[in-house]
Amino acid sequence: MNFSSKLIEEAVNAFATLPSIGKKTALRLVLHLIKQEPGFTENLSEALLQMRRNIRECRLCHNISDAELCAICSDRRRDPSLICVVEGIRDVMAIEETGQYHGQYHVLGGVISPIEGIGPDQLQIDSLVGRVAEGTVKEIIMAISPTIEGDTTIFYLAGRLKDFQLRISTIARGVSFGGELEYADELTLGRSIVSRVPYGE
Amino acid sequence: MNFSSKLIEEAVNAFATLPSIGKKTALRLVLHLIKQEPGFTENLSEALLQMRRNIRECRLCHNISDAELCAICSDRRRDPSLICVVEGIRDVMAIEETGQYHGQYHVLGGVISPIEGIGPDQLQIDSLVGRVAEGTVKEIIMAISPTIEGDTTIFYLAGRLKDFQLRISTIARGVSFGGELEYADELTLGRSIVSRVPYGE
Repeated sequence: MNFSSKLIEEAVNAFATLPSIGKKTALRLVLHLIKQEPGFTENLSEALLQMRRNIRECRLCHNISDAELCAICSDRRRDPSLICVVEGIRDVMAIEETGQYHGQYHVLGGVISPIEGIGPDQLQIDSLVGRVAEGTVKEIIMAISPTIEGDTTIFYLAGRLKDFQLRISTIARGVSFGGELEYADELTLGRSIVSRVPYGE
Repeated sequence: MNFSSKLIEEAVNAFATLPSIGKKTALRLVLHLIKQEPGFTENLSEALLQMRRNIRECRLCHNISDAELCAICSDRRRDPSLICVVEGIRDVMAIEETGQYHGQYHVLGGVISPIEGIGPDQLQIDSLVGRVAEGTVKEIIMAISPTIEGDTTIFYLAGRLKDFQLRISTIARGVSFGGELEYADELTLGRSIVSRVPYGE
């Protein structure tokens, strides 16, 4: 593209380094900034800079956090005897969105994947065992993707936690609510028949 | 969405004020920034701030510019006797992209539209007449959208410029190159038959 302006070109290239933003979208964004007051761009830049400079990892659960402890770990209404183990921070957001969970979290930072060279040492597993060893935790919910890597990770974690007095559960797997049976994949449908639950529970 | 982080929430909201970026995309962009080094976010912010603080309008043609005169007006290889009149800066970019034009531009800032309350006074028409009155300009190309408002604007401009020794032309209208006839709209197809050109020209 020919911008005949170095300033525009650099702003477009900067936007276009972001995922899912191509040059055309980047140009539309830049032209939008030009149409707004300079204060608009300053607010945007400031919000991004403040976020990036001050965001950190929660000391306890490794979720993203504004302070040493994240908003969830420092919330006294959350049950510290219940930990939901997840792969990443998006999973925390998705579960929080449901409003169904009132325990704490533990963010692993991924799953065990020999193909991608991710072993247990690259994940926040030791710190999970450390939290459990303190004695408060009574139940661990494994909210990990139902994939081969996910199942491997759950198996490994269960092994590491087997000497503690703990209830370990995984999230229920089956046909989606509102989903039509004919469109469910075979594996899910097959397993949901094997793991059928008594009516009325 | 529940971010459990004020910093994340504000950065997501800032991104989501941009056109075509919803909350979900904004979150993906913010999580991308977190994954990169802080310098990445600083470069992005700096490029946007520099652009917005220093961008201005070319004194002559009203195109966006890094200096008092834009890169095109200050380029001595561009023919100052030929002015292409366009609605906006995107049109300048599109025409520059073709590599077919070597004159200067004049950016009107829109077209005459009584419905939207845009009259000739809101557009850069007086400054165009002023440029022509200086005597260097020999031809004006009206590269304005073939709409009712565009045609009205061309008609008005032709009236304002009728006392000068000028060639006034409009860009050719017709069936797109590479377009299939059966998909061309009736008006375009009809006009392209009326305005047929001798073969070989």
